[in-house]
Amino acid sequence: MIASTEPAAAAGVFTRNRFVGPSVTLSREHLADHSARAVVIVSKNANVANGERGRRDAEALAALTAAQIGCDSSDVIVMSTGVIGVPYPDGLIERATAGIELFEPDFEAAARGMMTTDTSPKVASAKIGSASIVGIAKGVGMIEPNMATLLAVVATDALLDDGHLQKVFRSAIDRTFNCLSIDTDTSTSDSAVILANGLAGPVDGGDFESALVGVLTTLTKACAIDGEGAETLIEVTVDEAADAAQAKRVAKLIVNSPLVKTAIHGADPNWGRVAMAIGKAFDDDRIDQELVTIRFAGTEVYPERLDEAALAELGRRMDTDAVAIHVSLGLGGDEATVWGCDLTDGYVRINADYTT
Amino acid sequence: MIASTEPAAAAGVFTRNRFVGPSVTLSREHLADHSARAVVIVSKNANVANGERGRRDAEALAALTAAQIGCDSSDVIVMSTGVIGVPYPDGLIERATAGIELFEPDFEAAARGMMTTDTSPKVASAKIGSASIVGIAKGVGMIEPNMATLLAVVATDALLDDGHLQKVFRSAIDRTFNCLSIDTDTSTSDSAVILANGLAGPVDGGDFESALVGVLTTLTKACAIDGEGAETLIEVTVDEAADAAQAKRVAKLIVNSPLVKTAIHGADPNWGRVAMAIGKAFDDDRIDQELVTIRFAGTEVYPERLDEAALAELGRRMDTDAVAIHVSLGLGGDEATVWGCDLTDGYVRINADYTT
Repeated sequence: MIASTEPAAAAGVFTRNRFVGPSVTLSREHLADHSARAVVIVSKNANVANGERGRRDAEALAALTAAQIGCDSSDVIVMSTGVIGVPYPDGLIERATAGIELFEPDFEAAARGMMTTDTSPKVASAKIGSASIVGIAKGVGMIEPNMATLLAVVATDALLDDGHLQKVFRSAIDRTFNCLSIDTDTSTSDSAVILANGLAGPVDGGDFESALVGVLTTLTKACAIDGEGAETLIEVTVDEAADAAQAKRVAKLIVNSPLVKTAIHGADPNWGRVAMAIGKAFDDDRIDQELVTIRFAGTEVYPERLDEAALAELGRRMDTDAVAIHVSLGLGGDEATVWGCDLTDGYVRINADYTT
Repeated sequence: MIASTEPAAAAGVFTRNRFVGPSVTLSREHLADHSARAVVIVSKNANVANGERGRRDAEALAALTAAQIGCDSSDVIVMSTGVIGVPYPDGLIERATAGIELFEPDFEAAARGMMTTDTSPKVASAKIGSASIVGIAKGVGMIEPNMATLLAVVATDALLDDGHLQKVFRSAIDRTFNCLSIDTDTSTSDSAVILANGLAGPVDGGDFESALVGVLTTLTKACAIDGEGAETLIEVTVDEAADAAQAKRVAKLIVNSPLVKTAIHGADPNWGRVAMAIGKAFDDDRIDQELVTIRFAGTEVYPERLDEAALAELGRRMDTDAVAIHVSLGLGGDEATVWGCDLTDGYVRINADYTT
């Protein structure tokens, strides 16, 4: 649980999946007044598709947490990820919430506590004058957030107007977590919430937004590199696009292509697969293959061709923890960057063996 | 090469990928008059993204083939799949076409000759009265045809009006190859062509369409089960949909989910992942999780719950060559069936090791 000693301005974005669970629907209701005190997080069980029982459990979790920290139930946000369709074990919510107490924040412990198939806790922070932002996140499978994100909690003591907070948070999420895809599957439980309790006083709006985007970018890349089975972070930048939506769409087509992902796994500068992925923007007749430039790890491979020795050398440079794919569409001035990871036999193993 | 001794009515559907190659653009031009004599197929090289040289090579391939069989160059359709961005070796087109001669058709040899990563030739046939239909296909990677298909050639001696032929062929492709997804990647080279030379005289239109759909369904399933690294055919049927487009969209979301594909690989009746995949129809607010029914291999798993013993027994029944997933949306009377395959470490191995 992350809690603020004072009432905090709060904003949240949630999954658009239509099999959404009661953690998300209840949290949406509780954020309607743009304020909250705490976020309580359950890992290894999503509490999704559990009918009336699921809704009652989510409400009980909020109410019992609120009773422990002395706030209204509607000021508690609930997050839950893990297996779908299995209710929480009888009595576990009561036993777990009975132990809740407030102490000095240990964000790394919280980040570790909410891990599912994650192999490392994800924490990032920044300072804006005397104020701080700290964010934690989890999620390395069933990850292609859409207008929302995996599980992330951001806490700040900056003083921000709550209407502004929602706008800045959504915009920052769109440029960070919504640019992440590990496996094209969008969780039923994605939730990101920010709490701003104002204890450090007002800050410059632009500085705050930059710091927030920085924190969320760090968390996004940490999730990508920890993607289930992943060995290589893939960063795809598309520029010279006709508009920002085109840049993001093409970048997502590339980072989501299993053939591009396996090529990166094989450290193969297979630009033909990147060309194929760009070409999947079927109805976008502005895209012209004669205007496109493709680079791996900073080296142009199309339309400029490399000879065999140069390709082999490039392949050796791609056998690393992170590979950048850079595509210029030659159409305009907009760009987007997205993050993903390679597709490995480790991904198959984790997900073929992970039982219901 | 597949050739007809007589001029044939012809129709074709092609990839919508925007990095399309000259084989596709030239073939589209050659089919503008709805007639053709031959289809010449190159395997292991897509002749895509090769600029002017690629276009000249495609034209030379058509012209040299036409010269050998004595027809106009515009009556030859060209197909080519394999590596992208590498021109045909110098002189190979001339040497290969010099050996072309007409003999009694051996469709299995043709199907074998065009294989790339396929492990088996794909041939299917049917009779309509005294007329026949024979189809061949290849393609087990970079496969999610969109308004087109992988490489397929269908030959029939039925007499059909050429306008009708295009309509029937496109409709049949929509219900068969366009319902196939091996890895969500859409090739730059997908092409399907039908030649109808009329030698067997007229046939009943309805009988012809049924026979054609039957032939194409057999080829579609043969491609799915031979999907790169695949061990299990996945057949997803969505019924009780509000309309046919909704049924097909939801079925595709399920068959394309890497988490569903790995669950099937693990013989795990993980219906939560199917629920998640259905929920990815983000903007379709008609979908109501309370109305949905999910079945694996004929057994309902949601909303009806199985106990642990029954789930284990179902898992054992799913450890087979083909698994059916059947979802009812509870909304209306439309349905769709799509085909795909499990995601295995074999897929990763083939595509991480396959070099440019």
